[in-house]
This record gives sequence, C-alpha cells and structure tokens, in this order.
Amino acid sequence: MERFRQLSPSEFFYRNREIAGFSNPARAVYQTIRELVENALDAAETHGLLPEVRLNVELEADGKVRIRVEDEGVGISPLEMPNAFGRVLYGSKYVLRQSRGVFGLGVKMAVLYAQLTTGQPVKVRSSVRRASFVYEAEIAIDVERNLPIVKRLEVERNESRWHGTVVELVIRGDWSQARGRVEEYIKRTAMIAPYANIFAYGPQLLLEFNRSSTKLPPTPAVGKPHPRGVDVELLRKLIEEANKNSTLEEFLTENFDGVGPITARKFCEWAGFDANKKVRSLTIDEIETLAVKMQAFEGWRRPKPSTLSPLGEELLAKGVKEVLKPDFVTAVSRPPSSYAGHPFIVEVAVAYGGGIPLSEEPLLYRFANRIPLLYDEGVDVSMKVVKRIDWSVYKVKFPSQLAVVTHVCSTKVPFKGVGKEAVADVPELESEIEAGIRECSRRLRSYLSRMEKLMEARKWEITVSKYVDEVASSLSYVSGEDKELLRSKLLEFIKAKISERGVPYAKGR
Amino acid sequence: MERFRQLSPSEFFYRNREIAGFSNPARAVYQTIRELVENALDAAETHGLLPEVRLNVELEADGKVRIRVEDEGVGISPLEMPNAFGRVLYGSKYVLRQSRGVFGLGVKMAVLYAQLTTGQPVKVRSSVRRASFVYEAEIAIDVERNLPIVKRLEVERNESRWHGTVVELVIRGDWSQARGRVEEYIKRTAMIAPYANIFAYGPQLLLEFNRSSTKLPPTPAVGKPHPRGVDVELLRKLIEEANKNSTLEEFLTENFDGVGPITARKFCEWAGFDANKKVRSLTIDEIETLAVKMQAFEGWRRPKPSTLSPLGEELLAKGVKEVLKPDFVTAVSRPPSSYAGHPFIVEVAVAYGGGIPLSEEPLLYRFANRIPLLYDEGVDVSMKVVKRIDWSVYKVKFPSQLAVVTHVCSTKVPFKGVGKEAVADVPELESEIEAGIRECSRRLRSYLSRMEKLMEARKWEITVSKYVDEVASSLSYVSGEDKELLRSKLLEFIKAKISERGVPYAKGR
Repeated sequence: MERFRQLSPSEFFYRNREIAGFSNPARAVYQTIRELVENALDAAETHGLLPEVRLNVELEADGKVRIRVEDEGVGISPLEMPNAFGRVLYGSKYVLRQSRGVFGLGVKMAVLYAQLTTGQPVKVRSSVRRASFVYEAEIAIDVERNLPIVKRLEVERNESRWHGTVVELVIRGDWSQARGRVEEYIKRTAMIAPYANIFAYGPQLLLEFNRSSTKLPPTPAVGKPHPRGVDVELLRKLIEEANKNSTLEEFLTENFDGVGPITARKFCEWAGFDANKKVRSLTIDEIETLAVKMQAFEGWRRPKPSTLSPLGEELLAKGVKEVLKPDFVTAVSRPPSSYAGHPFIVEVAVAYGGGIPLSEEPLLYRFANRIPLLYDEGVDVSMKVVKRIDWSVYKVKFPSQLAVVTHVCSTKVPFKGVGKEAVADVPELESEIEAGIRECSRRLRSYLSRMEKLMEARKWEITVSKYVDEVASSLSYVSGEDKELLRSKLLEFIKAKISERGVPYAKGR
Repeated sequence: MERFRQLSPSEFFYRNREIAGFSNPARAVYQTIRELVENALDAAETHGLLPEVRLNVELEADGKVRIRVEDEGVGISPLEMPNAFGRVLYGSKYVLRQSRGVFGLGVKMAVLYAQLTTGQPVKVRSSVRRASFVYEAEIAIDVERNLPIVKRLEVERNESRWHGTVVELVIRGDWSQARGRVEEYIKRTAMIAPYANIFAYGPQLLLEFNRSSTKLPPTPAVGKPHPRGVDVELLRKLIEEANKNSTLEEFLTENFDGVGPITARKFCEWAGFDANKKVRSLTIDEIETLAVKMQAFEGWRRPKPSTLSPLGEELLAKGVKEVLKPDFVTAVSRPPSSYAGHPFIVEVAVAYGGGIPLSEEPLLYRFANRIPLLYDEGVDVSMKVVKRIDWSVYKVKFPSQLAVVTHVCSTKVPFKGVGKEAVADVPELESEIEAGIRECSRRLRSYLSRMEKLMEARKWEITVSKYVDEVASSLSYVSGEDKELLRSKLLEFIKAKISERGVPYAKGR
C-alpha cells in the first residue's frame, strides 16, 4: 500500500526551487536580487510614488552573499510583515491589475533559499506612510506548515517620518558568476523605469541611475474580469457569491468588465438564455454552456486598459536613450488589445547607432510588465518575431548597431514558467509585437534614407567644392566679376542644390 | 494599504495552469492523457506488476473530449481516493525513489482543468489487490480550500477479483491538434516500456502495443538522502526529529545513504566536529557549517543506485527495435553516477537504417524516468550533446537514417519546469550522456565499416563472377578438365578471397 501525504506550498517550492529560477548558486543570486528590486519598485510606483531603490551586495566568508535592498515605497504594516515574507502563496497582488509580481512567490523563494543554504532568517525593516513607528523583524519559514516564524521584532519611534522597506538576506551563492547578469539586469531596469533612482553597489558593481523624468506612468486600476476570459470554475464561484435574487442580466453587468444592460441582454438573446432568470438557479450544465457562450460571443467590448500601466512612447524613448546612447531612437505604444479576455498593450522601441555595440543580429531587449527578461531569449515570442523580419527592407545591413526593445504590459502576461523569463507565443500578442516593430522600423528606414542622402550630398558637396576656387577664378577672368562674389554665389548654389534634394540635417527624436 | 490574502495550492495552479503544461486546448488534451497514462504505468510497475494500459478518447458535443484510462495496477484505497484526485500537492511519491510522477500535481491539474472547462468531476473506479469491493466515485476540487468534494460514491462486490484503476475525465480540448502528439507519445512510451501492454483507441487513433518482454526492470527501493545533497533546512528538520541522545556519528549513520561509523568519524575529523557531540545541541551556525562541510566532503560513498530503475541494455534495445524497426541498434546502460547527492543513471541507444525516416539531423528520442519528452527539445541537455557531436567521425553522412535515444533515471531529474519536458544541463549528466552516445556511436561505426566492406566485397564478387563462365570454358578447353568442376572451384576461390577480407554477413544486434 502507498503512503500518502500532503505537501505544503512551502515544501513544494522548497523541493522544486529550480522551477522558480533558483537552479544554481549564480542564478540564485540573480533571482534574489531581482525579486527584491521588483518588490521595491512595485512598492513605490503602484502607489504613485517615484521609486528610490538602493541595492547593496557584500561578500562574506564561505561563499555567503549578503543582499540588501532599500526602498522608499509605501512600506508594509507590521501585521502583514510575517506572512508577506514567511508564507508561500500569500500576497497582495492577486488582483486584476498589472504589477511585476503575480505569483506571490518571489521574495518567499528568496527567504526559503537563504534558509536552506545559510539557515539565516530574512531581516525586514519597514514603516508605512505617516506612521509613528518603524518595525524591524527577523522572519523564517516553517516549511512543513507554510507559516512564518518571527524570530525577533523590534519597534522604534519614526522620528524622521521615513517610509519604505529594507530587506536583507544572506544566501550562499556565486557572486562572480552572477555579477554580469545583475549589472545587465539593473541597466535594463533603469531603461524601462527612467523615472526611478536606482543605485547598485557591490564588489565590482557600481551603477547609479538618476531619474531622467519625474513623470510616472499611469497608476493601474484594479479591474473586473472580462467576459471572454471566464471559465466554469470562476463562473461557479461568482454565482455562489451573487445576491440570491440576482438575474442573469444583473449578474453579468455587476461582475464583468465593460458589460452594460444592453450588451448583457444582447448576449443573453444570442446565447439563448433568459436574461431575467435567477442566476442562482442555473444548473452546472447551464453554467458550463454559459461559460462557453461567454467565451465565444463577439459582441463584448474590448477589455479596458485601465488595469494596465504602459510606459508611453516618450518615457520609453527616454529610457532607451539614457542607457544605450544611440544616434536614433523611436518608440511606439500600440493601442490596447486582448487575448482570452486579458487586456494587453505592446510597446516597442527601435534604436540605431551611437553607443549600441556592433552585432551580426539585432540586439533584443525584452520587458514584461516592466520586468527585464534576461534568460531563455531563444523561446520568447519577441525573438520569434525579430528573427522573421527581413531587415534589409528597412535598409539595415548587418553587422549593424541595431537594438529592438519590446515591452508587454498585461494583467496576465503569458509567461512560460514561474521563473518569468520567456513570454509564450500567443497569436494576438505576436501580431501586435510585429506591428510595433514594423512601425518603428519604417521610421528607422526614413532616418537611414535621410542619412544615406545626407552622405551622398556631403560627398557631392566635397567633390564639387574642390573646384569652386578654380571655377570662380576662371569666371572672374572671363567675366571680370569679383572672384570672391562669384565664389560665394557658387557655394550658395551648391547649398541650394543640396537642399533641393530634400536632405535634412536633423537627427531622429 | 494593500489587501493581502493566502492562495491555496489549488488556486495557485488553477491561476497558473500553463506552468504545468495546460497552456492551450491541444496541449491540455496531450497533458491530461500523459498524466493518466503515467499514473497507470506507475501503478503497476512500481509494484512489480506487468502494466496493462488502455486509453480511450471520445469526442462529444461542443469540443468536449472524454478521456478514459484503465489499468490493472495496485489500485487505490477508497480512503485515499478523494485526496489523491481532489487535493493538489497530495501524493504518495514524495519519497526518494525513481517514479514518473514527483510533483503530486499531474492528475489533479487534469481534474482542475476538466472542472474549469466543463464543470465535470473526475470519475474514478478502483479496487486494490485481493479486495472484496470495487469503489466508484465522482470527485471535484474545492479550489479555494484545496479539498476534495466527493459527489457520488458507490460500492459493489468485486466478484472477478479485479484490481486496478479506471479514471475518466471530460475536458474541453482540441483533439485534432493533439492527436499527432498523443500518437507519438504512446509510441515512445511503448518504446521505453516494452514489457507493457498499451492500447490506445480514439478518433483516427488505433495503437496496440503488445509486450515483447515479460521482464520488468528492477523495482526501485525507497532510499535515504545522500550526505552531499543535504541543505540547512533538511538538516535542521532531521536533527529536530532525531533521538534526544543521538551523537553526531549516530545521527549521520542513521539518516544518510551509505554512511557507516567509519565514514562518519572520518568526516567528523575532517570537518572539525566532535563525533560524540549530541546532535541536538548544535546551534544554527554549527548546523550551517555542518551542511557546508557535508556538501564539500570528498570521502562519502557514491549514492546507491538501488532507488533507481534503469531499463537495462537488453530491454532498451528491444523497445527501440520494436517501435523503430531499424537495421541496427545498440544500447548502453552507463554506470551509476550522481549530482548534488542525487543518484542517476544514463541509458543511451543508437539505431540506424530500416524503418527510421531519412533526415538531415539525428532524430532524438528523449526519456526521463521512462517518461517520453516531446516538447522543448531545443533547450534539453541531450540535444545540446547531440548537436556538438561530429557524426562524420562515426561514418554517418547526412541525410541519414539515424536515431539517438537517451534515458535519464534519477530520484531527482533536473527538469526545467513542472511540465516535465526538458532536462537541464547539469554538467555530470551532460558528460554521462555524451559518454553513452559516443560508446553507442563507436559500435555504429564498426557496423557501418562492416557494411562498407560488405558492399565493396559484393561489388567485387559481382564483377568477378561475370567472368567465371568464360574463364571456366577457356580453362576447360586448354586443360581438358571438366568445365563444371572448374567453375565451382573458381566460385570457391572467390568466396575464399572475400572471407579473407574479413567481411562478416551478420547484422548488428
């Protein structure tokens, strides 16, 4: 006979930590830093505050790495602190709204990893806004029961009215292997968050990004599910929670995104349901049919993008300019779209020349909900799109200095794994990414055409100018006109010819 | 202020089902079948029974797919039935022993998926060995509380003394897209389990694999953890559970694989620990040091492979022969090895010619703990190895009919995700796979050399034989000897010449 037992979520992820990105000592350092930095950014910008993030890495004896991240975000209340750091699958981000974190796993995985490699608890210091006290705690995880163990809790007066969170972890990890990735990660984070101050210090690590803008992207709102994205389980749960006397029409308008009474009745008619039927009287078979019909109905409004927080063309271009220092950059924020009821927005930037390194292929910078994605590029949807584009159409000849930046914002980014490194090739997403890249690339082509013409004109100017003196002398000799006058006329004539060719001197924005 | 809440494991995987392979309607069909078939095989062979697996797929209205898998395995007790099918992260496979399932997720994910796409519970019918009753139940999952809901339970007399399990699920899925993958999956499963009867029936699906062997691979034993694979968390837990008066020496010998008193004392001396110290008196810092030293100590014995169940060279070659029908096949079972304290064995087969389709690259068949891996080939360690091999060294010229089969057995296969599709490139594993492929390939080269010589000899024989009649006539005319006698002498002479060249006629095993 088999012996059965229940695993707690902590134990599951403790046993299978590689699934969440903690697969080796180098990756663990990178992943820990990433989780802490992303929480720090979310703690500020999701609440309308300009992020201030400070990362410190110190090496200790026996390959131990001390990682500290400080932010000046909204802070965390002492009541939530133990669970937020010591309980897997406990979080505040299980709502329909774009944020970096979604799995309720990240920081707890880092805490678990610290615990199993050095046995040391996480140290947290935090104060919420306008609070009179600062709380500092050391928290470990009871793996078998998935409960926090508070090892120490201290309170002090918050004289300076500071708010924010400081998290400190000691893990066993490979800093020398991780350093390059961490540096790249911080750079890319700065690229996608030009409104943040981000400072990173550690052995052979010194990065200081001061914000180039004080404009925050719009704060995302918490939304309702879209009727297209419904499933039987969600529907059953919502019906269970519905008012006893709710009709189907009322149920639909109350619970779903963008459904008014007219749309609700139109849908019911199309689907063969009585709009006045009490929703609680639906059988499981009817609920199933309802779900199928809701997924199939063409008459719903598109999901509202108010739950999303795209960066915007201006900020994206600014971020790219700041970090890559290209000669040319252009950005596109595509109109909102959706897949399976999940709203999304794709943003793309294309940059060229300047500080971008020469390469045989376009350099791809991928972002999802403002998270830089560094691993598993080969299986990402953006890579798929970049690879199938014939760049010669856009006048790019390789080796070249071309960078493509893609940013997917969604309440549900279709990540391929809990490690959040690659985005799956959902068709709707793929075509938006392609449209964005092509739009930017057409602008790049215009720029490159202008540059080409400019180069030609310069060449012609140089060639022709060589003869100006001689021609002016000859003309002066023949006509008796002043040589200098003739010379300046000739130069004017050349300039006019060049501008006739419509060659501008301005650079791309 | 943020609103926090706890997700149950069910809810987590319900929200993130793509992580477990349920990413689209086609993949969901494939994944469901896979989970059920793998459980069916485990239910027999892990307990020394020859597997009998029968898959039935039926299409119903509205894109619903009814999937039924029957086995004649050990069955499941009615007491465990609700939890085994209706509770995520509940299972019997959380022990140190090779088995197909490990995550305690598979079948529950399928049940969840059925529930959210059709609202229908799983139907289970089972009887354990020598039981007087058969139990049939319908089970749903209370997602928010991660608890089973038993919708119906019936009992009947087990007149025929049947034992086994029948599982039936109705999911919404795309059969026409999934069919090809399912067929390939079943074929590969038959390849790696030549001792199983596997029958699969469905729309445009008819596969019947009768076992070609009644020899089961060795049943794996449940093992202890290896000292090298220890972490602070595990150590802390084991110490907590240890006898109050246990010394460090006793603790090490009792709890770890292959540690006797001599090794334990040798380790303690090397690590600077007192072997007679009470283990419960260790501080957390000492436990941390102990863990680090245990991971680093070179003097441990290798992990015991008794927890593993490799197929063996003979069975593997048989399975490959049965399914691919090649001209040549050879298999290698490498000696046990380990990474980070986890024992593993790599098995490799190389097959050539016959029924193998012509291709520009070697066809790779990947298996892990007898699970065929069909997706994400590009990021698998076996692919990495196959790609870097220069096949011309082994006399293979592409396009060719070459198949490479790799099988990794381990108590902990380093999968890249919960979907169990790709194996990570752990160095120890990589070098074993390479050694296995090279060993097989050298045998393939000998075979191909023999074939080459054989072809040359045949050509020579044909050319020379053309002149035998004429030469015999002429010799007979000159010498007066009997023409027929001369002819047979000449033919004998040719044969002798050929065998002088050492050309055998036998095929590879």
